[in-house]
Parts: sequence; C-alpha cells; structure tokens
Amino acid sequence: MHVLITGASGMIGQRLTARLAREGTCNDRPISRLTLTDVVAPPKPAGFAGPIEIRTEDAGDPAVAEALAALRPDIIFHLAAIISGEAERDFDKGYRINLDGIRNLLEAIRQEGIHNGPYVPKLVFSSSSGIFGAPFPASISDEFHVTPLTSYGAQKAIGELLLADYSRRGFVEGVGVRFPSIVIRPGKPNASAGGFFSGIIREPLQGLEALLPVEDSVLFTHASPRSAVGFLIHAAGLSREQLGPRINLSMPGVCVTVGEQIEALRRIAGERAVKLIRRAPDKAASDIVKGWPTRFDAARATALGFKAEKDFDEIIRIHIEDDLGGHLPN
Amino acid sequence: MHVLITGASGMIGQRLTARLAREGTCNDRPISRLTLTDVVAPPKPAGFAGPIEIRTEDAGDPAVAEALAALRPDIIFHLAAIISGEAERDFDKGYRINLDGIRNLLEAIRQEGIHNGPYVPKLVFSSSSGIFGAPFPASISDEFHVTPLTSYGAQKAIGELLLADYSRRGFVEGVGVRFPSIVIRPGKPNASAGGFFSGIIREPLQGLEALLPVEDSVLFTHASPRSAVGFLIHAAGLSREQLGPRINLSMPGVCVTVGEQIEALRRIAGERAVKLIRRAPDKAASDIVKGWPTRFDAARATALGFKAEKDFDEIIRIHIEDDLGGHLPN
Repeated sequence: MHVLITGASGMIGQRLTARLAREGTCNDRPISRLTLTDVVAPPKPAGFAGPIEIRTEDAGDPAVAEALAALRPDIIFHLAAIISGEAERDFDKGYRINLDGIRNLLEAIRQEGIHNGPYVPKLVFSSSSGIFGAPFPASISDEFHVTPLTSYGAQKAIGELLLADYSRRGFVEGVGVRFPSIVIRPGKPNASAGGFFSGIIREPLQGLEALLPVEDSVLFTHASPRSAVGFLIHAAGLSREQLGPRINLSMPGVCVTVGEQIEALRRIAGERAVKLIRRAPDKAASDIVKGWPTRFDAARATALGFKAEKDFDEIIRIHIEDDLGGHLPN
Repeated sequence: MHVLITGASGMIGQRLTARLAREGTCNDRPISRLTLTDVVAPPKPAGFAGPIEIRTEDAGDPAVAEALAALRPDIIFHLAAIISGEAERDFDKGYRINLDGIRNLLEAIRQEGIHNGPYVPKLVFSSSSGIFGAPFPASISDEFHVTPLTSYGAQKAIGELLLADYSRRGFVEGVGVRFPSIVIRPGKPNASAGGFFSGIIREPLQGLEALLPVEDSVLFTHASPRSAVGFLIHAAGLSREQLGPRINLSMPGVCVTVGEQIEALRRIAGERAVKLIRRAPDKAASDIVKGWPTRFDAARATALGFKAEKDFDEIIRIHIEDDLGGHLPN
C-alpha cells in the first residue's frame, strides 16, 4: 500500500509519518511505499523498510497535484495548509493553499481516474473546528451549521464540501477530520492567539515563565498531537458504508477551562510550576478566543471509534512522554 | 444607481428585470442604469427611462467577471447558474458556472477595489435550499448544518461561504438568498424531478392533463416567482448591520403537502381541474424528492422582513394574475 502525506513537514505531518514508518502499517494494512511532500523538505523518518520519496513543492500548484495523483497512492493524508493567522494576513495565499490545494488534488485524482483507468484513493483531509463561528450553543452538535469567522475556516469548510461532493460522485473516498485545539505543541512560544493553551503548560514544565492573556474561565476543547495522529489513521480505515454521506466529522477532545488546565498542571508538576504562570490580561487575544468554538458533542466521531484523551492530566502526560523524553526536565 | 443582473434571461432574472425597470427604483433608491447579462441575450425590459446594456457572455469566464466589475455597478444580482439536473449530469460545467462564476465575480470585485479605488458593491446571490441534505429534522432551523447531496447544492453552499468571507473582509456587501421551491413555473412540463409541483396546477388550469409521480403526502415548501423577486430586492436593501456575519438566509415559504396543493386547486378552479391530475407513481422521481428538504423555520429571514405567500391558494392566484392575464383560460 502506497501512502502519500502532504504537509509532511508540519508538526502533525512529522508525527504521522514517524508512526506510519515505525509501525509499517496503517490500520493493519502493510505500507509498501511512502511519499512525503511539503514546501520545505520533510525529514526522512526512521525505521521504514520500503522506499520513501521526499518531495519539496508547492501544495497550491495544479501541476504538483497532477504529479501526485499520477503516483496513484492508495491513501492520501492531505495536511498541507496555511495556518489561521497567515490565511487572515495573506488572503491570496490562504485561498491558493487551503482552497485551491484540496480542489486541485481532488480534480487531479478525478482526471487520473478518467485518463489512466479506475483510481479511487482514500483521502483524509485535515479540517478544523474553525469552520464553526460564534455565537455557539452550550455544546456544538454534529448538525450545527457552518459559519466560519476566519478565511481559514471558510477555506476548510469549502474543502469539506468539495471532498464530500467528489466522494458522493465516486471520484475519491474522502473523510474530513475536524481537529479541536491540539496541545501541548512543542517548541517556543509563538504569536498565535491560542498559543497560550500550550504555553501555560509547556513553559512551566521547563521552569520557564508563561503568560496567560485570558481569564481562567475560558473553555476550550483539546486533544494531544498523539490523538491527532490517531484520528487521521483511524479515519483512513473507515469504509464508505461506515461514514455514509456526511463524511466530515468533528473529533472528540477534552473540554476544560484554563483553570482546569492549571489544576492538571498542579497535580503533575506541583505548585512551583503553577507559580510560573503569569496573568497578563490582553483584551485583543481574549476577544479572538471568544469567537472560537468551546465544546463539541462529537457523537458521530465517538460512535465511529475516534478516541481522544480522558482528561487534561493525560494530555500533559503524553507531552512529557512524547516531547520531554518521559520525565520532567527539572 | 447602477444595477447589474447576471442570469438575466432566466425565469426569475426576467421578472426581476421587469419589476426594477417598471418601478425605476430598488428599495426606493432610483435606478439610473441597468446592465443585463446571460449566455443567451436577455430581452430588453419595457418602461425604463435610463440606459440598458444587454450583454451575451459566459458567466464562468474570469474575463467576463473582470469586465462586469469594471463597470462598478452599485448592486449586483448574481443569478447566473446551471440548474440542479444539469450540474449533476455535467460535473465540469456545474463547477465552472456555479462555483467559478461567483468566485471569479468576487475576486474581480476585490481586484477592482484594489486597483481602481474603493469599490464595495451590494451583491445578492441566489442560493438554494439544495444546500441541505437528508436526513432532516421536522423543521430545518437557521442553524441546521449544510450537507448537500447534489453537486448543485455543494456549489451553492461553497458560493455562500465565499460570499460570507469576502463580505467579512469588507470586499463586498453580500447576502445569500436560499430559495425554496419556486412555483408555479410558467411554460411547458419539463423533465426535472420537481416539475410536477408546478405541473399539477399549471396544466389543469389550462384544461390539460398533468401527471403526479409522488404520493399526496409529500411535503414541500414553496413561494411564487413574485415572492422570489421580492426576496432578491428586499435582500438588496438590508444593511451590513441588519445582517450581521451570517449573511446567507433560508427564505420563508408555504409548506404544504401535494394533497393540500390539490385542495387549493379545487377551491380556485373546481373539481373539473382536479380531475385532470393523473396519479402515475414513479419510484425514481419519488426517491429524488425524498432527498429534498421539506419544511424551513426561516426565523431570521422572517424577522428581517422577507415575505412569502400566506397559503397555496395565494400562490395559485398570483400565477393566474402574473402568467394567465388575471383570469382562468376556460
């Protein structure tokens, strides 16, 4: 089985690649070949026996989509995307990568099937809870409408619609995975509005101060990077019959307040860590976060077997295992 | 004020044009100039004092969108579309006209504003209840999700998302009008799956037999062509503040069963007309209709002042007034 990953250099892309390479299977089906592509060269994963092709190219280029479809991969994980903040700053780039990227890929797959014989790959598309826009009900059901308040959210919502229509027409077997907030992101603090959700855990665990720009009562739904990878792999194993026509699914997660995140940190790393969180209220950041969805029902995804962590303690422990070598630095 | 209508040769386009030309205003604002475009030349409306430009061109061509935006119309009614059945038969044409058509137009408007000075027209987009897909709740609320089961529905849903994002970014003042079933359509019976909703009234009123392929219990939401025109004009008069960020609206209508349609016909044209309806059950037609949305809540549109008929009798009377010269033919 040939697996293609676009956006393979991203945080999720690298972890997905590493897991598939290490296990050599995807949902118990052996992987014979890996193709990795991104705008910056993805690192070559360890432990994979078969051939690995590393490609450096632009996900918004129709010729790239054609070349990828011509490889006729059996499973495609389409993770290539411009993040929310960048899509908002650079309108053209956001539409080119986030909308034209998936559309070109879908059309290239269809044309490959038309011109070179039947070809209907599994296509797993990384979508986002950003397809939803405030105001929200107490819990967002699987039947809540899609009214994004960012260009990123609009682009992902359009990608979902294209994926569903191309799937319905039999050109591809699509499944859209709407990620909740994925924490704890490794690396340094960044300027993204939601960066603090990771930062208030990541920095204190390393003995560093972290700024908290919002109130402790802010509610949000999170899953670990390990769960995100699990969502993608599980999605690739679902059949057309299991999915039915509504192929885009809100993923489960751990819904907690910032205060509850901090209590989890206290249980795992003690008062000394918690003291490193400094309240620095920022109305602008607070207002952005208020536009984001808080709690998901995710009943369909749960029924289909998607699994996230049970509580935020588990998310922190996974961060320690996967990013900190299994123990606290200090 | 300069008004542009795309798809001006269609049934709704011609009636919208005729009303704007006759009244010389749109929501009490004087119209100084009319531009009408379609792939077949729109007829020149009567009674308009100002200049009328008639254009024959392809709504899917980016150069056409650029040329239209360069005219800097104040209000654009974008009605150009390939109908549902054709979009399903011709996948490429559907995407080119129904998706690229609105995207090209939005982008041409944005580029016009960037290159030739501020330009933010009002853009009224004809969408459809086809953006929804079964299974449905008893009544489809304004917050029900968008899961089209046709390519036409997917294309319209994507158009809505693009319109909302371009509006949010300030490039255009968009409003999407989701039409219910529009009846009674004039003309001859056609092969469309929902054609009988008009046919079982139109033909008997003229002393002709009409086939009814579905059961009398089938429920559907209708408005007259006169209401459809009213929706578009009312939409053009709504401010950004009235609309808020959720600019795509399900229109109100008269929700009746086929049996109730027939009872309305009996009240208006008597038993002789009703006897011309011949039951001809057709499982294929029946199955298609079962996938269509039945009843809408349309609370937001109603609160914003959109109005449809009160009952199906009124829809029949409007057909007699607007299409049959005000009296029954026989």
